[in-house]
Amino acid sequence: MGVQRVAIMTGGGDCPGLNAVIYGAVRVGIEKYGWEVLGIEDATNGLIDLEYRFPKGNQWLTLESVRGILSRGGTILGTSNRSDPFNYVTTGPDGKETTVDVSDKVVANFQKLGLQALISIGGDGSMRIARKLMDKGIPIVGVPKTIDNDLASTDQTFGFDTAVQIATEALDRVRDTAESHDRVMIVEVMGRDAGFIALHAGIAGGADAILLPEIPYRLEPLAEMIAARRAKGQTHCVIVVAEGAKPLGGDASVLEHKAGAMPRLVGAGTRVAERLGPMIKAELRVTVLGHIQRGGSPSNFDRILAVRYGQSAADLVAEGRFGHMVALRNGAITSVPIVEASSGVKRVEAGGQLVQTAKAIGVCFGD
Amino acid sequence: MGVQRVAIMTGGGDCPGLNAVIYGAVRVGIEKYGWEVLGIEDATNGLIDLEYRFPKGNQWLTLESVRGILSRGGTILGTSNRSDPFNYVTTGPDGKETTVDVSDKVVANFQKLGLQALISIGGDGSMRIARKLMDKGIPIVGVPKTIDNDLASTDQTFGFDTAVQIATEALDRVRDTAESHDRVMIVEVMGRDAGFIALHAGIAGGADAILLPEIPYRLEPLAEMIAARRAKGQTHCVIVVAEGAKPLGGDASVLEHKAGAMPRLVGAGTRVAERLGPMIKAELRVTVLGHIQRGGSPSNFDRILAVRYGQSAADLVAEGRFGHMVALRNGAITSVPIVEASSGVKRVEAGGQLVQTAKAIGVCFGD
Amino acid sequence: MGVQRVAIMTGGGDCPGLNAVIYGAVRVGIEKYGWEVLGIEDATNGLIDLEYRFPKGNQWLTLESVRGILSRGGTILGTSNRSDPFNYVTTGPDGKETTVDVSDKVVANFQKLGLQALISIGGDGSMRIARKLMDKGIPIVGVPKTIDNDLASTDQTFGFDTAVQIATEALDRVRDTAESHDRVMIVEVMGRDAGFIALHAGIAGGADAILLPEIPYRLEPLAEMIAARRAKGQTHCVIVVAEGAKPLGGDASVLEHKAGAMPRLVGAGTRVAERLGPMIKAELRVTVLGHIQRGGSPSNFDRILAVRYGQSAADLVAEGRFGHMVALRNGAITSVPIVEASSGVKRVEAGGQLVQTAKAIGVCFGD
Amino acid sequence: MGVQRVAIMTGGGDCPGLNAVIYGAVRVGIEKYGWEVLGIEDATNGLIDLEYRFPKGNQWLTLESVRGILSRGGTILGTSNRSDPFNYVTTGPDGKETTVDVSDKVVANFQKLGLQALISIGGDGSMRIARKLMDKGIPIVGVPKTIDNDLASTDQTFGFDTAVQIATEALDRVRDTAESHDRVMIVEVMGRDAGFIALHAGIAGGADAILLPEIPYRLEPLAEMIAARRAKGQTHCVIVVAEGAKPLGGDASVLEHKAGAMPRLVGAGTRVAERLGPMIKAELRVTVLGHIQRGGSPSNFDRILAVRYGQSAADLVAEGRFGHMVALRNGAITSVPIVEASSGVKRVEAGGQLVQTAKAIGVCFGD
Repeated sequence: MGVQRVAIMTGGGDCPGLNAVIYGAVRVGIEKYGWEVLGIEDATNGLIDLEYRFPKGNQWLTLESVRGILSRGGTILGTSNRSDPFNYVTTGPDGKETTVDVSDKVVANFQKLGLQALISIGGDGSMRIARKLMDKGIPIVGVPKTIDNDLASTDQTFGFDTAVQIATEALDRVRDTAESHDRVMIVEVMGRDAGFIALHAGIAGGADAILLPEIPYRLEPLAEMIAARRAKGQTHCVIVVAEGAKPLGGDASVLEHKAGAMPRLVGAGTRVAERLGPMIKAELRVTVLGHIQRGGSPSNFDRILAVRYGQSAADLVAEGRFGHMVALRNGAITSVPIVEASSGVKRVEAGGQLVQTAKAIGVCFGD
Repeated sequence: MGVQRVAIMTGGGDCPGLNAVIYGAVRVGIEKYGWEVLGIEDATNGLIDLEYRFPKGNQWLTLESVRGILSRGGTILGTSNRSDPFNYVTTGPDGKETTVDVSDKVVANFQKLGLQALISIGGDGSMRIARKLMDKGIPIVGVPKTIDNDLASTDQTFGFDTAVQIATEALDRVRDTAESHDRVMIVEVMGRDAGFIALHAGIAGGADAILLPEIPYRLEPLAEMIAARRAKGQTHCVIVVAEGAKPLGGDASVLEHKAGAMPRLVGAGTRVAERLGPMIKAELRVTVLGHIQRGGSPSNFDRILAVRYGQSAADLVAEGRFGHMVALRNGAITSVPIVEASSGVKRVEAGGQLVQTAKAIGVCFGD
Repeated sequence: MGVQRVAIMTGGGDCPGLNAVIYGAVRVGIEKYGWEVLGIEDATNGLIDLEYRFPKGNQWLTLESVRGILSRGGTILGTSNRSDPFNYVTTGPDGKETTVDVSDKVVANFQKLGLQALISIGGDGSMRIARKLMDKGIPIVGVPKTIDNDLASTDQTFGFDTAVQIATEALDRVRDTAESHDRVMIVEVMGRDAGFIALHAGIAGGADAILLPEIPYRLEPLAEMIAARRAKGQTHCVIVVAEGAKPLGGDASVLEHKAGAMPRLVGAGTRVAERLGPMIKAELRVTVLGHIQRGGSPSNFDRILAVRYGQSAADLVAEGRFGHMVALRNGAITSVPIVEASSGVKRVEAGGQLVQTAKAIGVCFGD
Repeated sequence: MGVQRVAIMTGGGDCPGLNAVIYGAVRVGIEKYGWEVLGIEDATNGLIDLEYRFPKGNQWLTLESVRGILSRGGTILGTSNRSDPFNYVTTGPDGKETTVDVSDKVVANFQKLGLQALISIGGDGSMRIARKLMDKGIPIVGVPKTIDNDLASTDQTFGFDTAVQIATEALDRVRDTAESHDRVMIVEVMGRDAGFIALHAGIAGGADAILLPEIPYRLEPLAEMIAARRAKGQTHCVIVVAEGAKPLGGDASVLEHKAGAMPRLVGAGTRVAERLGPMIKAELRVTVLGHIQRGGSPSNFDRILAVRYGQSAADLVAEGRFGHMVALRNGAITSVPIVEASSGVKRVEAGGQLVQTAKAIGVCFGD
C-alpha cells in the first residue's frame, strides 16, 4: 500500500512562486496519484498545534482550492519564521519567553492526521528542521526557497526573477526622473549576504553604480565617478545598494546607529546617502524597496520553475525518495539529498562573468 | 503678423506626463499653427545662459523629435528646481554662493532667439516666476504641474494618477507578503503637505491605516486597531504613511533628528515604525517609495489630460490669451488667470466624501 | 426593525472592479450596519435555483471572504448573460429550448432566504430585470456596470479606465515594433456601439488613426494619410479599430461574411486589414485584444470608484432608498432612479472636445 | 593597428532586447576599446544605399545616444525583412519588381565608411547573409536573434522571456474573465514552427489546453476535456493556440481559406474557434496577441542576456574572432561559428520534461 495522504507546508520568508509550487504539487498529487493533500498552516505551527488557526487552519487542498493561485503572490498556507519545533518559543503566564522541544508533538500529530509524507517548501532553516524531523521518522521531500538565489545546489531558485524584475522596474522609473532632474538617486534592494538581486537589477536597470555585500565599497571611487560624469554634462546618477552592502574596513556608521535608538531601521542605502551627500555636495534621494520585492504575481519564469518543483516533489514522494530536495541543474529538474542542499551557499564572485560585464559597460562597484 | 516662434519649457519636480504635454503642444503648434517650436533646457536655465547645455542644450522640436515621447517618463527638456532668474544662485571664485537678478538677461535672450511666446509647464514656483516674467514683457501661457493634485484651480493635475497607481501596486505586493507572513508593514508615499496620494493609494491598495499631513495622528488608535485585528486572527496590517504625516502635538522625534546628523533622510514612515514597533511588540518593515512615484510611463488618464493641456496651451498662445493657465473643470479643458491659479491649494478634508468612504470600510486614520 | 440580511449579485459581462464593489458593500454592510450579506451566484441564477452551484453556490460573505478581492479581476460571485427570470431558457428532454417566466420562484426564494434587500451590480439588462423584480416586491438598489463608459446617468463607470489602460499598453508595444519595422499595424479594441475605449486608448497610445462606431469611416483618407507619412519617411502607422467600427454606407464585407461560415469571428480589425492592405500595398498585422480588456487587476481609479459605489449602495439600502442606482456626478457619489438610469446612453460626439484634441494632434478618423 | 571603426546593425523581425544589445556593444566598444561605432539603418539597407534615411539614416552612436535605450522596445537602428543584398528587390519604372545582386556595393560602401568590422544582430536570414558577406571580405561577428527561442546553438535567445511574459499576463486576464463568465476562451500566440512561447505561457498562465505546431491536434480530446470539466462544474476553459498549430492530418480549413479572399488574416486561433464552437455548443472568444508580443520594454532576463551578448560581440571583434556568433551555454557566454549557428533549430519535444510537466498538471494537448 503506497502513499495516500500527503501534507504540504511553506516556511521562512515570503517568495513569489510559493503558491505555484503548491499548485503544481497538489494537481499532480490529485490528478496523477489520487492522493488526499492536506495544507498545513504557517509552517510547522499547523503541526505543533492542530487547533492553530490564523486565519484558516489546516485545510484539505482540492483542484478547486488551488484554482487560480498559480498567479498569486504570497502563500495560501501562510508561513512563519518562528516555528522550529525543536526550539519552540512559548510565552509563560509571567510574560517570559522560554524555548521548548515540541518535536514529539509534531510526530504524534503527523500520525494522528493519517499522513504518510510531507512536502516542505522553505529556506535553509526549514531544510534544517526537515532533516531533524526525518530523523524522528517523518518522510519528507524538500523544495528549496530563497529569494536571494544563493543556493549552491540548484542553478536558480523561484522568486528571484520576480524580485529582480520589480527592482528593475523601480530603477527604470528612478532613472527617468534622475535624468530629468539631474539627481543622484539611491535604490536599496534586498540582499543581506548575497548581492545577486542588486547585481542583476543594477545591470538590467542601467544603474551607474552597484554596491554589494561581497565587494566592500569605498565612497571615493563613487564620488570620482560622479565628478567625472558631471564633467561630461551627465549630472544624474543612479546607485543600487544591496541592504547588506558594507564599506571597506567595516561600517563605523552602523556601530553608531547600533548604539542609538534605531539599530535596524536605517538601512545601507540611507547610510550611503548620508556620507556620500556631503562629499558630492548634493542632496541624495533614497528609495527603499523592502518587501515589495517579495510580493506580487510571480514572473512566468518563476511560475514555471515553481510548478516544475511542485510536480517533481510529488514524483519524489510517489517514488519514496524521501530525504531529497528538488533542484534545477542545466535546465533540467533533478534532486539532491536535503543534507547536501543546505550546506552550500552561492555568492557573487568579484571575478565572475556578470561582474565583468557590468564593469565593461562602465558600472562602478566602489572597489 | 501672428506668432511664429514659440518656446516651451518644464520646471520644478519631475511628474509623469510632462513629455505628453510637450507632445501635445508641439504637434498642435506645428500641424495646426505652423510654428517653429524651441525646447528650452532645464527650465529658465536655457534662457539664462544660451550656452548652457546639460546635456543637450535648447533644441528645435519637430514631429520627429517628439515621436514616441508620449509614453515616456521624465522630460526631454530637463527640469530644474534652481533656476529662478530673479534670485539666481551663482558660485563665486571663492566658492561662496551669491544671489543675483538675471531676469533682464532672460528677456534679452528671449528676444535674441526671435521668440514670440513661451509655454511654461511647472508648479507653483514656475508660475510665480512666469507672472514676474510676464511683467517684464514675455508673453506666457502656463500649464500647471503638481504630482500631489493639490491645486484649487484645476480638478486634477497630470501625474497624480500615475503616482497613485505606482503606490497602489506597491501596496498590492506588500499586502500579499504581509498576509502570508503575519507582518505589520509600512509604506511611505509622497505628500509633504497634501495627502491625496496616500488617501487614494490607501483605499485602492486595501491599506488598514492611512496617515496624512492633514489629519495629525496618534499611535494609540493604530495600536488598538492592530490589537483588535490580532484578536480576530488577522495578524497582518498594512499602513500607508504620507511623507508629511505628523503626530498630534508635533513631532519630538523630528526635532531630535534635526539636531542630529541626518535631518532629512529618516522619513515619516521610519519614525512611525520606530515608535509603533515597541507598542505592538513587533518588528515593522518599512518601504520608502520615494522618487519611483515620479518616474515611469504615465497612465492613460495622465497622458490624455497632458495632451489636452498641451493642445490647449497652444490654442491659448494662438488666441493671444497670455497670462492664462490651462485647467480642467468638470471634465472640460478651460483656462484661468495665472495669478489666480497659484493662489489656492487643495487639501484632503477630514470630513470629505473619500475620507468617509475609507472610514466606512474600516480604515484607521489614527484620529 | 430594519434591514438585517442583504443579498448581492453581479450580472452581465465581466468588468474590472466588480470585486471591489462587493468588497466595499460587504465591508460597509458588516462593519457599519451589522448585516449578514449573502452572495448570490451567477446573477439571478442563484435565486432561480437555490441548488445551483457552479462552482460554489450562494455563499455568506464575511470580512475574511472579501479580504484581498479588491485587487482581483473577475467576480467571486460569478456572472451570467443568460439569467433573465422573466425569460428563462430551459432545455427540455427533447433538447429543445423553451422560454419560461420563473420570476415567482425568484421572489419565493428571496423570501425563503430571509432577505430584506438586494444589491444588483450589472449593466442595462440587469437594471431592466431589477426594475421588474422591484415591481414584484423585491427591494433593490442598483450599481451600474458597463466597460464601455456609455451611461448618461453617471460621469464614469468602473472598469473603463482599466480597459483603456490595457489597450494603451498594447498600443505602446505595437508602436515600438511598428516603428522599428516600418509596419502598418491594426489593434482591434472593444466597443460595439460606443467608441470611448478606442478614442481614449488611441490618444493615449499615440495611434495615427482611430476608427469608431460613431464616425463611419472611409478607407481613402486612411490610405492618403499613410501615403503622406511615407512621403515624409515615416513608413509605420498604428490604427485602432473599435469592434463596432463601420465603413460609410454600410459594410458589404460584413454581409459577405454573414453569408459564409464564420459570421462573428472575423472582426472589424481584420476587415479593415483585408481591404486596406491592397490599397497601400502592404501586409497589415492585426492584434485582437478581445477579453483581455475585461480581465485583470483594476486600476486605482476603478478600484476607488467601485469601492465608493459599493459603500453608497449599502448606504442606500440602509436608508431604504430602493429603486435607486448609485452614480458619479462631478466627482461626488450620488444616486438616480433605476428607471432613469438605463434609459440614456452616451456616445462619442464627433464634435466633442476629445475628438477635436485627437484631430488637432493629427489623428485620422477616416471621415 | 587594430580595429577603430565598427558598424552595428539589426535585421529581421522585431524582438525585445535589440536595443540592449546595441547598448552593451556600444558602451564596451567606446569605454573599453575606444572605437567609433556607426549604427547602420534598417539592416543592410543602410549599407546598400548610403543616402538611405528612413527616418534617420546611419548615425554615429555615442554614450549619450545609447543612454536610456536599454529599457526600450524596438530598435533605434530600424530593421528590415527585405534587405538581402544578394537578392535585392528593386522596382523598375514600369512598376515591376526585379531582383539584383548589390553585394559589391555593400562591400564598397563598407570600405568607403572606413569600417573594419560589422556586428550583425539578426535571425537566420541575417546570419546567412552575414556568411556570404564574410566570403566577400567583410569581417563580421554575429548576435543571434529569434523570439521563438528555437536556436540549437544557444540555450536561450533574448526576447523570448518578454514574449512569454506578455502572453502570460494576457492569459491571467483572460482566465479571470473566463472564470467569472463560464466562457471558453482562445488566446493565439506567436510560433509558426516552434511552440515554445505557447508551451511556456500556457503553463505559466494556467491554460487548460495548449496547441502547438509540433504536436498535431485533434479537436475531440479538447471537446472531451471541456465536457469532463463541465461535469465537475468548471464551465470555463482557456486554450492557448500557437499561430502554427495544425490539426492532425492537415488543415482542410486552411485550404478553404487559401482559396478565398483572406489567406493569411484568419489565424489558427480563429480556425479552432470556428470548429470547436459547434462541437461544444458554445460561443468561443478569440484574442489574437500578434505583434504586442514583439514590442515593449524587455524583461530583466532579456536585458541582461542582451547586454552580455553585446559585450561579448565587442570582445569578439577586439579579438579578431570574425565569423563567430555569441551564444549562451549553461549560463556562460561563449561563441560558435556562424556557419554552425543557423544550421540547427530546436523544437518542442513531445516527450520532453516541460510537456510532461504540463500533462502531469492536467493540460490537454489535443493528442
